[in-house]
Amino acid sequence: MEQASGDDPAEPGRSRPSEGGRRARRVTSIDVARRAGVSASAVSRAFTEGAYISRELKARVMAAARELDYEPNPLARGLITRRSGMVALLMDELSNPFYPEALQAFGSELHRRGKRVMLFAPAPGEPLEDVLPQALRYSVDGIVVASAHVTSALAEAARKAAAPVVLFNRMLEHGGLSAVTCDNHAAAELVARLLAEAGHRRPAFVAGLETASTSIHRERGFAAGLHQAGLGAPRRVSGGYTYQGGYAAALELCRGGETPDAIFVANDIMALGVVDALRRELGLDVPGDVSVVGFDDIPAASWPSYDLTTMRQPLRAMVSETVQLLEDQLESAYPKATTVTLPGRLIRRGSARLPPA
Amino acid sequence: MEQASGDDPAEPGRSRPSEGGRRARRVTSIDVARRAGVSASAVSRAFTEGAYISRELKARVMAAARELDYEPNPLARGLITRRSGMVALLMDELSNPFYPEALQAFGSELHRRGKRVMLFAPAPGEPLEDVLPQALRYSVDGIVVASAHVTSALAEAARKAAAPVVLFNRMLEHGGLSAVTCDNHAAAELVARLLAEAGHRRPAFVAGLETASTSIHRERGFAAGLHQAGLGAPRRVSGGYTYQGGYAAALELCRGGETPDAIFVANDIMALGVVDALRRELGLDVPGDVSVVGFDDIPAASWPSYDLTTMRQPLRAMVSETVQLLEDQLESAYPKATTVTLPGRLIRRGSARLPPA
Repeated sequence: MEQASGDDPAEPGRSRPSEGGRRARRVTSIDVARRAGVSASAVSRAFTEGAYISRELKARVMAAARELDYEPNPLARGLITRRSGMVALLMDELSNPFYPEALQAFGSELHRRGKRVMLFAPAPGEPLEDVLPQALRYSVDGIVVASAHVTSALAEAARKAAAPVVLFNRMLEHGGLSAVTCDNHAAAELVARLLAEAGHRRPAFVAGLETASTSIHRERGFAAGLHQAGLGAPRRVSGGYTYQGGYAAALELCRGGETPDAIFVANDIMALGVVDALRRELGLDVPGDVSVVGFDDIPAASWPSYDLTTMRQPLRAMVSETVQLLEDQLESAYPKATTVTLPGRLIRRGSARLPPA
Repeated sequence: MEQASGDDPAEPGRSRPSEGGRRARRVTSIDVARRAGVSASAVSRAFTEGAYISRELKARVMAAARELDYEPNPLARGLITRRSGMVALLMDELSNPFYPEALQAFGSELHRRGKRVMLFAPAPGEPLEDVLPQALRYSVDGIVVASAHVTSALAEAARKAAAPVVLFNRMLEHGGLSAVTCDNHAAAELVARLLAEAGHRRPAFVAGLETASTSIHRERGFAAGLHQAGLGAPRRVSGGYTYQGGYAAALELCRGGETPDAIFVANDIMALGVVDALRRELGLDVPGDVSVVGFDDIPAASWPSYDLTTMRQPLRAMVSETVQLLEDQLESAYPKATTVTLPGRLIRRGSARLPPA
């Protein structure tokens, strides 16, 4: 078994500078072995941390590698070390600006740790549970699932996976998978209490995807906060976590003249649609007629056209905790599902009447 | 040389279902060989299209593979076929919604062709030319560079690369690399002619990054169109391709009361900042006092708060042409730099006074 003995599969390395028009062929460990007059196995050992090789032999290999501009291929190495240095990110909501931001944050955090993100975005209509095995086939060191579409089939596949899986900004109702989320319940409870304290009496809630844990926990927290303030359950409609869905939800809430005086919206991209519908289609004043509070604090929330009061998610901390959970699980022979919950922070802007901080 | 003989490096495959709490070990070709009582080389040949293997031997390998739930690892295969099925996307402007959209489009287009996107987003401050060799180390089948930061060092590295490189939404002034862009010059020329025809006499231009070909060509086209209409060169400031930059650019253009009556902005995300600054900070009416035209047609351009007239880039066609160029170059022993230019389309909304279509 070559793998056990540390032999190096003939891996493509960096390119030899092209002499003519023809594209450079990749320099392989075989080329280095030939130039140095040693075995391919010696080349592999020279590039493997802690492998046995005499000082003289190593020097000869390294000189040949320098001459040929050779660099070992991390994928070939991954076949030996069973570490590819790649983390798969399963993400299917890139049209919500929260996710491109998260993607950048994962890129930075993993780069800091000498790793890379491989993004797996399902094609339109492709279920996420079909994408997970594809990611596994690339020998990734771990998988982050950042999607509202975490079905039980996906969870089952993730639990059986040969690589650690962590849910980002989602959790399973009944556990079984590691997860990092904002404390959605506590954050929504606070929004409800502040809206009630400011005198709002006809609160409404715009849900996201009905099956998403984020939306469910934000709705529960909001209802709990209203209850504590002596108010009844809010009216509620669903906006499917899109701008267009939020726009339509606001129109539905205001149909028949029963206009709410406060709308808590389960994410910001929907809240922008809510504000546009209230102002541009219904001629209502925000926050004069209706207070609107969002969730996430995406960049557009701070643009003067919206000036959206919102619950900020601690994005960088959430990303860092997610990567740490992956590393912990990778190191552990008996990994345990762990849930990390981080507090949100209310960002007060101009779209809601709230009591002073 | 194992590589030439088609031998299979001991690759990790799909997981064996976990029995206890311990994570499943990946099933390798060695496991399959053992179970089938054949050599590892036979397993490799069984899974290699067109490789020589007797029907009986292949059936034995496939039966063992099914029993063990084994799937060949595309990375291990890539070491043999020199094709990894991965295309690297170098992208550093994810905060401009045009790029997450492009990322999704690349994901769909490559999925259709049985490939995957590997996103390389440089860490803050990391130059893109440092990221290119990292992508090459992963044996990608091709590299798409979608960034305004295409320096001569990057172009030089790309020309020497051992994988085809195509620039997306950028081109080099002096060629040498394949590229796919919108016809930025013609599109900007049209905008200038229409604004002039509608009676605007004090046009201004908000540039993006000064070194970006997109911004340079849009500025040249705009100036050419104004010249054809008998108008002088536009006033111009730079907005660096960000919302905040556009906002500041609008304030600068209106300083001292010399307010332009039309602003052509080199991309939409800056144009949103221009509109917000004009309306919210300067109290001007758009388009009553100032017409604003953007470029890209990002989703927010259609939101009623902006209702932005803009030049739409043919995103899907651009992505499809980019992937096709990569494939063509991968097949060709003597690849030639090719530039594909696709026409933009004016989307008339409410932010500019234009003559009827």
